Amino acid sequence: MKESKNVASIGSMGEFGLINHLTKNFKHVNKSTLTAVGDDAAVIECGADCMLVTTDLLVEGVHFDLMYTPLRHLGYKSVVVNLSDIYAMNGKPEQITVSIAISAKITLTALDELYAGIKAACERYGVDLIGGDTTTSITGMTISVTALGRVKRDEICYRSGAKINHLVCVTGNLGAAYLGLQLLEREKELYLKDPNTQPEISGYPYCIERILKPENTPAILQLLRENNILPSAMMDVSDGLSSDILHICSQSGVSCKIFEDKIPIHPETRLLAEEFHLDPSIAALNGGEDYELLFTADPVHYEKLSAIEGIHVIGYITDTANQPVLVARNGVEVALKAQGWNHFNK
Amino acid sequence: MKESKNVASIGSMGEFGLINHLTKNFKHVNKSTLTAVGDDAAVIECGADCMLVTTDLLVEGVHFDLMYTPLRHLGYKSVVVNLSDIYAMNGKPEQITVSIAISAKITLTALDELYAGIKAACERYGVDLIGGDTTTSITGMTISVTALGRVKRDEICYRSGAKINHLVCVTGNLGAAYLGLQLLEREKELYLKDPNTQPEISGYPYCIERILKPENTPAILQLLRENNILPSAMMDVSDGLSSDILHICSQSGVSCKIFEDKIPIHPETRLLAEEFHLDPSIAALNGGEDYELLFTADPVHYEKLSAIEGIHVIGYITDTANQPVLVARNGVEVALKAQGWNHFNK
Repeated sequence: MKESKNVASIGSMGEFGLINHLTKNFKHVNKSTLTAVGDDAAVIECGADCMLVTTDLLVEGVHFDLMYTPLRHLGYKSVVVNLSDIYAMNGKPEQITVSIAISAKITLTALDELYAGIKAACERYGVDLIGGDTTTSITGMTISVTALGRVKRDEICYRSGAKINHLVCVTGNLGAAYLGLQLLEREKELYLKDPNTQPEISGYPYCIERILKPENTPAILQLLRENNILPSAMMDVSDGLSSDILHICSQSGVSCKIFEDKIPIHPETRLLAEEFHLDPSIAALNGGEDYELLFTADPVHYEKLSAIEGIHVIGYITDTANQPVLVARNGVEVALKAQGWNHFNK
Repeated sequence: MKESKNVASIGSMGEFGLINHLTKNFKHVNKSTLTAVGDDAAVIECGADCMLVTTDLLVEGVHFDLMYTPLRHLGYKSVVVNLSDIYAMNGKPEQITVSIAISAKITLTALDELYAGIKAACERYGVDLIGGDTTTSITGMTISVTALGRVKRDEICYRSGAKINHLVCVTGNLGAAYLGLQLLEREKELYLKDPNTQPEISGYPYCIERILKPENTPAILQLLRENNILPSAMMDVSDGLSSDILHICSQSGVSCKIFEDKIPIHPETRLLAEEFHLDPSIAALNGGEDYELLFTADPVHYEKLSAIEGIHVIGYITDTANQPVLVARNGVEVALKAQGWNHFNK
């Protein structure tokens, strides 16, 4: 009884609640520790600059399915999702460590594929692989990546800096990865029922690529720098726009108003959403794994921001007398709720 | 056929061979990357000093057995084994990240125990927990820890600095953890055969503690500093003295002569070895998991080194015209072979 209650309570806490519960009594004793748990990356002192540290654990059967995930893509993605957290702090990633636990079913050829993907991502983003650990696993594959990056102390973008009337912006487009995943899962189900089925995924290369091989957007950060725009708050969209903007709001002590018709959706995402009878806005709000940047900025930058291709102003920050709301296409305001990906409740 | 051949070739490569194979084509593009794969920790530039980075993956059923490993000890050990790599570079650990994958059988109470152990280790060694990731796992528990430390650039102790005639030294004593593990495994077997058996481990608290809750030895590094002794090469003893001294030899381009009668063995280790009809020297040479420091130093420091409690001079470095040898108690020289722990061949 007690055990199942405890398991239930882990589930009901969610990942962020659990991390908070487990780490709340830890004190910091080193003055080099500037920011720890609670943002996209930790910040530690590093000479005149700061070092950013972030880590992610990817578990087979939870984060990836080897039935439809090419190992080369998996290696690439395991790097990208970590670099995303460094970029989300406005940093430049420079080093990663990669640890893997592999079962006996993994061949050396398969491992070579995984590392070819890791190498491709390192080369694409100018990052050095500096260490790691390899070990056997009794069952599935686990990949643990830690990324280190650098940032000037006065250019760090925390989640907590959003101010009233600041613009809410997002890069690229949202919801594609979620719909790509639905497509892969549907075809997997069909294949499992009848192994003679040919998977029908050819019409949606963009959505498939977004889930299997996402990319980071450092070029946008460069454009912001060139335009002298320093985001007041920033994070990456990994759990869905809704959940993520609420993080910025709660950590900044503000609220927000987001306009549904401003949320960028790729045409292919719309088509695929139609096929699944899903609202593409729901995919954007609650889907996750987009690895786009979500940031707030002073409204004086509105014209410059609007002129940068790949940046979309989707709303603005309000005070906490208002609830965080989504203004639907029909003008009705609905409360924004965190329905992001909680794998403890899956 | 091809698959099993590949699996076999992963096993025959060993962990170091596999890491080398997977990472040999990676190039480094950031000038902040000073040393990558191949030592206890990677070294990156950090202002006037250097930052050390190391990471370890602990997998249930491979690195620990929850049947006899209290979770509090497991949390403690998962920190200590990482800090050990920072100390082995002559650094001071300051931050760690901890990621865990847990199955549904793990309760919140159990997680609290794990984190109580992590916290105890952080407090004991003055280290800050700055981040991590928590996720579900389909099967067993996986713990991934990354440790960051600092060191002055001219005080880094690499594995590659050993010079001919330098003394080979080791801290504390060796072989205890290996024998503690044998004891726990024996009692587990007996218990599995007859669950009414009471485990008989009470006579060996030291060996049990060495495997379940090892400690680091930063005080020795402090004593070396106070005596103005900078080791010419250093690493931690994690795979067994034999395997580890051979790493120092190969990376330094030297050979060595180790004296069996100088290898420090704890009295309880001897007693337990007797019970198992094992040679305690074999446990020291091939056992592993001691987390002591193995280092070389200029022979001018012989008297000072001999006077420091907890440091044992066990041999000296020779040139490569000689093979690395162990001088047995009877005076016979036998070749030192790396029979350290290779979990790919278990």
